Amino acid sequence: MNTGELVDLGQQLRVDSVRASAAAGSGHPTSSMSAADLMAVLLAHHLRYDFERPAHPGNDRFVLSKGHASPLLYSAYKAAGAIDDEELLTFRKLGSRLEGHPTPQRLPWVETATGSLGQGLPVGVGIALAGKRLDRTDYRVWVLCGDSEMAEGSVWEAAEHAGHEHLDNLVVIVDVNRLGQRGPTRHGHDLDAYARRFRAFDWHTVEIDGHDVDAIDRAYGEALSTQGQPTAIIARTLKGKGVEAVEDREGQHGKPLPEAEEAIAELGGARDLRVRVQEPPAARALHSAGTGETELPRYDKGDEVATRNAFGEALAALGTARGDVVALDGEVGDSTRAEYFAKEHPERYFECYIAEQQMVAAAVGMAARGWVPFATSFAAFLTRAYDFVRMASVSGSGINLVGSHAGVAIGQDGPSQMGLEDIAMMRAVHGSTVLYPCDANQTARLVAEMAGLEGIRYLRTSRGGSKVIYGADEEFPVGGSKVLRSSDEDRLTVVAAGVTVHEALAAADALERDGIRVRVIDLYSVKPVDRATLRQAAEDTGCLLTVEDHRREGGIGDAVLDAFTDGRPVPRLVRLAVETMPGSASPAEELHAAGIDAQSIEAAGRMLVEQAIVP
Amino acid sequence: MNTGELVDLGQQLRVDSVRASAAAGSGHPTSSMSAADLMAVLLAHHLRYDFERPAHPGNDRFVLSKGHASPLLYSAYKAAGAIDDEELLTFRKLGSRLEGHPTPQRLPWVETATGSLGQGLPVGVGIALAGKRLDRTDYRVWVLCGDSEMAEGSVWEAAEHAGHEHLDNLVVIVDVNRLGQRGPTRHGHDLDAYARRFRAFDWHTVEIDGHDVDAIDRAYGEALSTQGQPTAIIARTLKGKGVEAVEDREGQHGKPLPEAEEAIAELGGARDLRVRVQEPPAARALHSAGTGETELPRYDKGDEVATRNAFGEALAALGTARGDVVALDGEVGDSTRAEYFAKEHPERYFECYIAEQQMVAAAVGMAARGWVPFATSFAAFLTRAYDFVRMASVSGSGINLVGSHAGVAIGQDGPSQMGLEDIAMMRAVHGSTVLYPCDANQTARLVAEMAGLEGIRYLRTSRGGSKVIYGADEEFPVGGSKVLRSSDEDRLTVVAAGVTVHEALAAADALERDGIRVRVIDLYSVKPVDRATLRQAAEDTGCLLTVEDHRREGGIGDAVLDAFTDGRPVPRLVRLAVETMPGSASPAEELHAAGIDAQSIEAAGRMLVEQAIVP
Repeated sequence: MNTGELVDLGQQLRVDSVRASAAAGSGHPTSSMSAADLMAVLLAHHLRYDFERPAHPGNDRFVLSKGHASPLLYSAYKAAGAIDDEELLTFRKLGSRLEGHPTPQRLPWVETATGSLGQGLPVGVGIALAGKRLDRTDYRVWVLCGDSEMAEGSVWEAAEHAGHEHLDNLVVIVDVNRLGQRGPTRHGHDLDAYARRFRAFDWHTVEIDGHDVDAIDRAYGEALSTQGQPTAIIARTLKGKGVEAVEDREGQHGKPLPEAEEAIAELGGARDLRVRVQEPPAARALHSAGTGETELPRYDKGDEVATRNAFGEALAALGTARGDVVALDGEVGDSTRAEYFAKEHPERYFECYIAEQQMVAAAVGMAARGWVPFATSFAAFLTRAYDFVRMASVSGSGINLVGSHAGVAIGQDGPSQMGLEDIAMMRAVHGSTVLYPCDANQTARLVAEMAGLEGIRYLRTSRGGSKVIYGADEEFPVGGSKVLRSSDEDRLTVVAAGVTVHEALAAADALERDGIRVRVIDLYSVKPVDRATLRQAAEDTGCLLTVEDHRREGGIGDAVLDAFTDGRPVPRLVRLAVETMPGSASPAEELHAAGIDAQSIEAAGRMLVEQAIVP
Repeated sequence: MNTGELVDLGQQLRVDSVRASAAAGSGHPTSSMSAADLMAVLLAHHLRYDFERPAHPGNDRFVLSKGHASPLLYSAYKAAGAIDDEELLTFRKLGSRLEGHPTPQRLPWVETATGSLGQGLPVGVGIALAGKRLDRTDYRVWVLCGDSEMAEGSVWEAAEHAGHEHLDNLVVIVDVNRLGQRGPTRHGHDLDAYARRFRAFDWHTVEIDGHDVDAIDRAYGEALSTQGQPTAIIARTLKGKGVEAVEDREGQHGKPLPEAEEAIAELGGARDLRVRVQEPPAARALHSAGTGETELPRYDKGDEVATRNAFGEALAALGTARGDVVALDGEVGDSTRAEYFAKEHPERYFECYIAEQQMVAAAVGMAARGWVPFATSFAAFLTRAYDFVRMASVSGSGINLVGSHAGVAIGQDGPSQMGLEDIAMMRAVHGSTVLYPCDANQTARLVAEMAGLEGIRYLRTSRGGSKVIYGADEEFPVGGSKVLRSSDEDRLTVVAAGVTVHEALAAADALERDGIRVRVIDLYSVKPVDRATLRQAAEDTGCLLTVEDHRREGGIGDAVLDAFTDGRPVPRLVRLAVETMPGSASPAEELHAAGIDAQSIEAAGRMLVEQAIVP
């Protein structure tokens, strides 16, 4: 396209953004209009993409980090012939694929769900890493960001990661339109403020007028020819560009234009330009082959093995069997035992340093390219990435997260290092799976199994050794549980998981010595939960006691309730959980102080059986 | 102190760090040893602090961001005479104040709990902001960071905020010891890599040898005389400095020295130097006075008012009554309505731009200085700051968080903007309060009430208008609930909160038309929960139906269970919650699609009353 045609295409994208938002009665046309020329030139001259084959391995990848500018994205899809005008005007309506913020659950051309700002670039870094180190295909990753979102620390985690990894297949375009949601941004039109930050993180930068299509074209060309560094194109733009009533004005964020018809006329009226987007180059298939046979580690009953160790060994074995498994860790691989994988499969291991948001985002990016990522940190520190986990579920992304050092059982390091909210956090994520093994063989089996699931899969591991209580051939289906003690005379069911399983068994022994038979259930699958077994236990024993190394709220006790909310009678219930703020102490002292050790279970169980009120 | 004495003091801090860790059998002596000279010079020459009066308004503030170097901190306390040697050797033991990572819950000289890396600087920014704009006292804020934690985006949110606000009362000292937990950091000993990043964010920087006490002294002096910019001192150090067996060696993180006695000898043996820390200057008392009388907004029954609007108006009124109330927002104050406070009290309003971690950290910092912060964003985006909320609770910090745009009821913007996990997240935080009002008068009352509570207080508000159903004089004690419909013939209790209260009332009307009397409970206090009322309702009506605009896990349904886990019989239960991934649609369409509108409640209630199993 020549200059005039590119200008025209930009105007068309503006007009269609205005039209879509007007039809919806809501949306972000002004945020779309600032970036319209940047998008027009990308689409017409630089993007290599086959809209009919979004899975084509050679396709460039485009991420709209400023997801609220979805009208611009959908207008570009229309210009590329991927959607028609009728569909464009379904924007934001019930059942439409064209949501307020784009998601890959609905549209095959969207790489990741955006709408929580500061996430597009970190996910783009993950895709670019996959391109360089896994797919080894020379697609480009283009990320369009807003200027407001530069305030998010996750953007600088991503900048650091990309600069350090020399991701010259990554281009970020910052649409500096000066205005955030509620008014001016921190840096206004000071392009150099952004450029010098990116340069400090070892990026190549180009500053341009984001409405000069020739300058944009040259900048993209410069980015494509830059070796050894990612490129940030810092573009000065005007929000609402092209319509005087809204252009560069405050108070015009996130609403349709006041006079859509006049605005469209001012923009030169509706057009129907079509862009022939460049074909991607031929590219080879993904993934290195594995052996296909997973030889999981096997542990002897009675040995003491930490579940984090079993996780590491199982992950390394899984990596041998499956060439599509990759691992990422937040600079604690020696603790999480992800380093066992790193030693066996260094080419598929990603050190993310202490940047949990970037770690999860990179996993999402790699999953978008068909890889099966395991991202690991302390369970406590995965809270850092909660918004990324939440958005991963909006994307429908399939990622494995593993949190080590769960609960007060870690001992002396104290509460800052204790994962005590992780189950609540992960259970609340839509479509998630939450697993919490109590021994090494169970851990190994669950690692292999979780890799094959959909959605967000979370495994919780423990720091200290646990006695191996299951044989190496035992199976642990997700959604199941194990009944470890059972008799016809059971008067109480104790439901435990992870470290408390061993405490529950000891408590059951003690109660049995007093003639109180106890059923013990190992609830290794916290979500989904084994409703049938819990229901049966409740019917058989009349009462349930749950015990967990986690906060009372949102954890195993709450999960058990899932079995009893269909309107049928509910058993008598008591929950034991961590209800104090722990300090430093030995693991055994911590369990006792929190009231979740064998002695506490025994005491509460006795009261429950005696139908006393448990304080 | 002269050079020799400073060197000696540094060695003493090393020796005491080694001794404390040896006595504990765990801890981080090598991470302490790298920063010992930096700490010695600060303590002896620059810090102004009265250890007997930690609340002294003129005291400098010191934050150990690398909280694992707690042995160094406690050794410094000993050198300053704040603790004795006997207590030093209780490090990490049950009941000791000297935890693995320092917390203000145990020690009066600790400003904020650390141990989750990347949080000390953001909290320090909050304290420095308080110093500049609220306390208007010229204390200095000193933050000692590790080099590993520079990978956290939160550090750069803080750098951006401090640079932009010209916080020349803030000094960060980066202990560049080259080694993280599992091996070398990204930048090793490349001091300039850190310095140029800070400079890009408009900081003054000084690069020094962190073991040269005179250079350290000069650098602190330079920081103190720098105007208009915060200063970052980038110090080249060696991990484990002074003991050859561990100095600058990998694999020596987070463990006692292998031969403590030999190490102590190598460091020149135990010493008992005492430091006379400079007195703080006289300083005036904190806080501007308010009127003392809170004139909350009053709304007329039957009017449609969004609870977010009532929140904004109530917060502005509270700010008038109380001079200690401050507000912070993440660049969405026009949506959260925090802007109503900003208009009335601009001097106590802090725009944090889109940086939720920094926003919560700033609130924690201000709370540490005695202010009562309200930090606001979309409920969905508070997930970004979960690790900061978690650590705030470890600190025992008293902060108010308000999340707007809760649930699917926001409509067209779609799932990225919908707070659907926030109740689960906030409930799981130790000692938290979770409030969810359904009308404007209730909101206003709860805003005034939450400001007076301890710990983390969370208020959830809604985007759209809700009918005012309570009078302006009605009271809403935290831990209470409101029974909106009640009779002796009730056969079902519906428990709702926020937007679903109105749906529940409509459903109750419909069921009553069919002769089914329904009790309706407005559970505005989700945590703590009103056990007595729920228990009574269960006994009276035999079954409960909960309905919430939130995920099924960890929300209101789970909260209701709290009333029934004392071993006494539990009612029959059904939960309605958001179990799909919403798309874009109108608010009414969203509520219907999620199965939480009046029609859905009516259908499920009917099944429950008929003792059918509810799918």
